[in-house]
Amino acid sequence: MQTRLFTPGPTPVPAELSLAMAHPMPHHRTPEFQAIMQRTTALLQQIYRTDDPVIILTSSGTGAMEAAVVNLTHPGEKALAIDAGKFGERWGNLLQTYGRDARILKVEWGGSPDPAQVKKEVQEHGARAIFMTHSETSTGALADLESIARVARELDVLLVVDAITSLGAHKVETKAWGLDCVISGSQKAFMLPPGLAFLSLSERARARLEGNPTPRFYFDLVKALKLAPQGQSPWTPAITLVMGLEAACQRILAEGLEKVWERHQILGEATRTGLRAMGLQLLAARPSNAVTAAYVPEDVGADTLRNMLFERYGIKIAGGQDQLKGKIIRVGHLGAYDASDITLFLTATEALLRKQGTPIRAGAALGAAGPVLARFFDTGGVS
Amino acid sequence: MQTRLFTPGPTPVPAELSLAMAHPMPHHRTPEFQAIMQRTTALLQQIYRTDDPVIILTSSGTGAMEAAVVNLTHPGEKALAIDAGKFGERWGNLLQTYGRDARILKVEWGGSPDPAQVKKEVQEHGARAIFMTHSETSTGALADLESIARVARELDVLLVVDAITSLGAHKVETKAWGLDCVISGSQKAFMLPPGLAFLSLSERARARLEGNPTPRFYFDLVKALKLAPQGQSPWTPAITLVMGLEAACQRILAEGLEKVWERHQILGEATRTGLRAMGLQLLAARPSNAVTAAYVPEDVGADTLRNMLFERYGIKIAGGQDQLKGKIIRVGHLGAYDASDITLFLTATEALLRKQGTPIRAGAALGAAGPVLARFFDTGGVS
Repeated sequence: MQTRLFTPGPTPVPAELSLAMAHPMPHHRTPEFQAIMQRTTALLQQIYRTDDPVIILTSSGTGAMEAAVVNLTHPGEKALAIDAGKFGERWGNLLQTYGRDARILKVEWGGSPDPAQVKKEVQEHGARAIFMTHSETSTGALADLESIARVARELDVLLVVDAITSLGAHKVETKAWGLDCVISGSQKAFMLPPGLAFLSLSERARARLEGNPTPRFYFDLVKALKLAPQGQSPWTPAITLVMGLEAACQRILAEGLEKVWERHQILGEATRTGLRAMGLQLLAARPSNAVTAAYVPEDVGADTLRNMLFERYGIKIAGGQDQLKGKIIRVGHLGAYDASDITLFLTATEALLRKQGTPIRAGAALGAAGPVLARFFDTGGVS
Repeated sequence: MQTRLFTPGPTPVPAELSLAMAHPMPHHRTPEFQAIMQRTTALLQQIYRTDDPVIILTSSGTGAMEAAVVNLTHPGEKALAIDAGKFGERWGNLLQTYGRDARILKVEWGGSPDPAQVKKEVQEHGARAIFMTHSETSTGALADLESIARVARELDVLLVVDAITSLGAHKVETKAWGLDCVISGSQKAFMLPPGLAFLSLSERARARLEGNPTPRFYFDLVKALKLAPQGQSPWTPAITLVMGLEAACQRILAEGLEKVWERHQILGEATRTGLRAMGLQLLAARPSNAVTAAYVPEDVGADTLRNMLFERYGIKIAGGQDQLKGKIIRVGHLGAYDASDITLFLTATEALLRKQGTPIRAGAALGAAGPVLARFFDTGGVS
């Protein structure tokens, strides 16, 4: 049976991207590969909406988060980490590991940070940088990035954003909003296998690199920035994934970035509408269009539902993490999804819940989600 | 024209491995992927010749080198770095970056470290660890790893080995020789694209991890070791490359590890014999079977020869680094090569050198290399 990934990373890899990565590789220290890197970086900049440098790292997204911490803050420096879930918590862990004076702004799981509260915490703590998560993958909640960016600009502090599951799914205006460092990864909206992470660096961010005494080597962004204009990286890059990345960016830009955002909005809304129509309660008050988290009736059990979806239909969704283990499901709709995928997921879920005795009128999920999905075709939004 | 990589990493990727990586991916937090990781680690252990843990990292080899430094030595600790070329130099840079008290044992480029000298330096400096390169890719020289390992065991110091271009090409007996940390990477003898690095950890090495106050996060081996038995990694791994790695290890072990070493020995010797028969002088006194470095007559020029090989025949070889830029060629024969590849390289090189006026008798290269290559067929060694 075919596995159908509905996980918030990795996401399904379209066949054309698998093929791009199966092509014979050039050596990385050649004009051919330099040209690939330069073209790919230029495409990434279009998706980031910036003309500032975007660095490609061979690591998971966590590697790029570490790169941001060790390059953009100095030892002992004050910073604010917004922790609204498992990935926000990682910012605090990273800052503390590297001896930064981190204040943690805890937000209840499922909630999104209040920009006014962020402002107050930055001022009280005297933070020089804010580390935040745009789309919190553990809860499916989206932060109001544009408003928090306004706070950062007003207070003149650095804003570092984990946009790992939001870039390419939600509007992220790196330059216009004044975001100093935006991080993403290959296995999310970029539809590739994991192995690459990206980060942008504003002029303010670049100014903090030089003279930073923090020891760093593999993730040294001074070295990376020096080589990037020539399409080179300090260490051997994951060449085939970079080849796939060029094709992935082309695919996103051929569909049109705004169209891609709209598709994610429609599919996210359809998923939420369908789940609510089955009586499931959503976790996030301000939901991300990358991933939907919902409580599953206790008499069914989230893990039972997940296992049945996989065993019967090959549908792989994620479960809850930490305190939400066994209580919620997390459904990814980030990357190469279209209306038929959401239809499949909702139909299968409804069938299983009804089988387990949940009182749902047959066809309720699609009945509710249908009008939303119709917009997918109205906008011509075939991915 | 087809590009034919004769570079010491990346090396050509056999079609079967490209296909293994083009398969649909499982999610990494699933029993299916855990099983892949466990099987792959067990195969890696066979190639490493150890039953100690082998950790798979998503990074280049340099990332694994950093992991060794920040996990296996403590701040301010004394260590010896053997620097016999560009990659040995990196050990010194890494140790100094992280504030270790590093003594550097410089060996002239092309030379190999003298085990007696290593012993003296360790004793004089009071080093607690030796960092060395087995096959120095910048010079094509091989270190006497077995003898240096004896020194390390006698003096009871940790031995950390960059075996990035030697593992799978030369005999490396991780357990029997008492090597504490052996590092390799996917784009070398493992015939895969770059993106994964591996390291083994002896019991002595593991004992140094706990209580090490060095800040580390992405490359924290305590976390990695804790998850490895369950086939898990702290951060999202490069899933498709791991799928390729399983197939690559199977291919190596199906040919037979000793057979693979023998094939590299024959192909390395044939390359050296052929180049010498054309009057070229080899750089390394104690040559590696992974890569051959040779001086090119000044009236031809190493870079002219390289460019002609690429433009006429699609043959991509490497040039000299740092002070050897423009003076030498470096030819990789590491990974999926057989007698026909070496024949092609030698024939093409001879033709171009003769065209440029180098006095070589037609057929001299193959005339000399032929008897060596004949052994390739005698041993039934078709890769």
